[in-house]
Amino acid sequence: MSKRSINFYAGPAGLPTEALKRAQDELLDFAGTGMSVMELSHRSKDYDAVHEEAIALVKELIGIPANFKVMFLQGGAHLAFGMIPLNLLRKDRKADYITTGNWAEKAYKEAKLIAGDRVREAASTKAEKFARLPKASELQIDPDASFVHFTSNNTVEGTQWHEFPKTDKPYICDMSSDIMWRPMDISQFGLIYAGAQKNIGPSGVTLIIMRDDFLEMCEAQDLPSYLRYKIHADKNSLYNTPPTFGIYLLRNVLAYNKSIGGLQAIEANNRKKGELLYGCIDKHADFYRPFVTEKADRSLMNVDFHLPTDELNDAFVKGAKANGMVGLKGYRDIGGIRVSTYNAVTVDNVKTLVEFMEEFVNKNG
Amino acid sequence: MSKRSINFYAGPAGLPTEALKRAQDELLDFAGTGMSVMELSHRSKDYDAVHEEAIALVKELIGIPANFKVMFLQGGAHLAFGMIPLNLLRKDRKADYITTGNWAEKAYKEAKLIAGDRVREAASTKAEKFARLPKASELQIDPDASFVHFTSNNTVEGTQWHEFPKTDKPYICDMSSDIMWRPMDISQFGLIYAGAQKNIGPSGVTLIIMRDDFLEMCEAQDLPSYLRYKIHADKNSLYNTPPTFGIYLLRNVLAYNKSIGGLQAIEANNRKKGELLYGCIDKHADFYRPFVTEKADRSLMNVDFHLPTDELNDAFVKGAKANGMVGLKGYRDIGGIRVSTYNAVTVDNVKTLVEFMEEFVNKNG
Repeated sequence: MSKRSINFYAGPAGLPTEALKRAQDELLDFAGTGMSVMELSHRSKDYDAVHEEAIALVKELIGIPANFKVMFLQGGAHLAFGMIPLNLLRKDRKADYITTGNWAEKAYKEAKLIAGDRVREAASTKAEKFARLPKASELQIDPDASFVHFTSNNTVEGTQWHEFPKTDKPYICDMSSDIMWRPMDISQFGLIYAGAQKNIGPSGVTLIIMRDDFLEMCEAQDLPSYLRYKIHADKNSLYNTPPTFGIYLLRNVLAYNKSIGGLQAIEANNRKKGELLYGCIDKHADFYRPFVTEKADRSLMNVDFHLPTDELNDAFVKGAKANGMVGLKGYRDIGGIRVSTYNAVTVDNVKTLVEFMEEFVNKNG
Repeated sequence: MSKRSINFYAGPAGLPTEALKRAQDELLDFAGTGMSVMELSHRSKDYDAVHEEAIALVKELIGIPANFKVMFLQGGAHLAFGMIPLNLLRKDRKADYITTGNWAEKAYKEAKLIAGDRVREAASTKAEKFARLPKASELQIDPDASFVHFTSNNTVEGTQWHEFPKTDKPYICDMSSDIMWRPMDISQFGLIYAGAQKNIGPSGVTLIIMRDDFLEMCEAQDLPSYLRYKIHADKNSLYNTPPTFGIYLLRNVLAYNKSIGGLQAIEANNRKKGELLYGCIDKHADFYRPFVTEKADRSLMNVDFHLPTDELNDAFVKGAKANGMVGLKGYRDIGGIRVSTYNAVTVDNVKTLVEFMEEFVNKNG
């Protein structure tokens, strides 16, 4: 096997080599069926075992209470941005959105398309380019809101809610870029959604975790069937043909994550990676200039910084690539460098990057 | 490599072994990147080459005129059932639906949810259990209809429009189960949609072919972005993260189809398969009793028949499985046997089945 690149893409992102190797080994003959898993009917018992195992692994790894349903849909966070207000903001229901970044703002705008003035911003840090999260004192929660929407990790800007906002409302949360990065208590969440392609699988699968009372709020009898969460929940994500191969790959990733010690072990790795990377940034703060202004808000999934000049940013990306590291160019609106360190990025991968950063600053700083 | 099963599943269905082998060979290192294709950013030039090649192959194999856009979306035909009326039946627009089977009826019902009485049935053969297609004289087309919707192949019932219905309207067509089964002229179609998982790829990718004037009809500014065809067309299916691995697999399938002679060669194979299978059925018409009542309407993609008793149906499925053939159990509403003979099923596969059918009737007939 040729050497694997060190993948710092923001998503689709790297997956554990073990999960891919398993898929490769059985790509033409899954579990003795003489077929690829993607050639199996979604109504076959062979596929059903994969589907059930994937759901069970999500439940087990997160520790999901019995009053939640786990679903695998399509369309990514983008389709969820629309499905949430279409299903949950019927009649005169209201919602508060906390806008903390590019994606949080999209979620807010899509909700406003459907529910207009019944959707409002509970806080926004846009005036500060989303370079920090709002403080508890800045949150203005409408007592009539049915839920508060937030984005647990801001992929573009590199901020992350290490403690979830403190309100007495149920939460709806876009966890696309940090789902399963650590153990967590989800009991206050009415709905969690996450495109799989950052932390848990390939693109084309959206993980949905929905509390029973939120499912019961979906009275959208006049919506097209695919857009109704209740139908998917009642049919165990088999109402229509699911993205079977994507769900299988997600199963492989989660089975691997379980084998290495579950979310406790993954959190320990993610914290080590963060210490290494932010340690280097703080040591050379004049050279590796962090985009995020509050240390407490720093993301352990996406780390944004700028070098002193555009030429140095380019040279950094190029030099890293020559050393087998890809995906470091910053998002177009922010520029500079973005290091995405999702679950599949190893501590050794980050050590390699930090060694490169030390050399680079020694030469160019 | 272990022996491959002969796959007669109705979908997800078999794929060409060559297309899967190619995916297997490069699953951990695509095109020298040191990454799986599913680990590449959808904004990277390496993925972009795959995306563009997949679009180009769809255009080339079908011979798509310049005034059409090719898109890859998610959500299957089910999401399209809703997106069509949401985008195209705004204001006072009307549409006619020809209901010829289980899926055609779902498309019609979903359109009625959105547009109510502005959607009507131009013909239905439901009273005859959809066991034939309507004749030209049975079509009642509303002169005010903006389009006529039909289902080119009825997967459940086993009928297929060998000549498209003759009207002067633009067509919207669900081609999920026979897209690219032969060359065709698509100039009269305003929109073609097809879940990939039967003839051209894995589940999780929906091929959309849309004429420019239909794209211009989409004035749905108040719809969630993911549901707007115009946005996907303008962004070349990269508005949000596409199902990259599914599109890559579809690329592999189409590249293989091109290598064996394109849709002319595929049509010749499909016709040979049909002759063999229907030849056997007609020879033993008392034993292999076809569900479809009109020979002219017989599908070359899904072939439904009943043996004289339920016990014989079960024994047939079991015996075929013992001989390496899977997926022959009929759809739940129809029972009996369904043989799905999509593009990836070879003439030799059907010969093997027909030999088994001859032996089975000799023993049990």
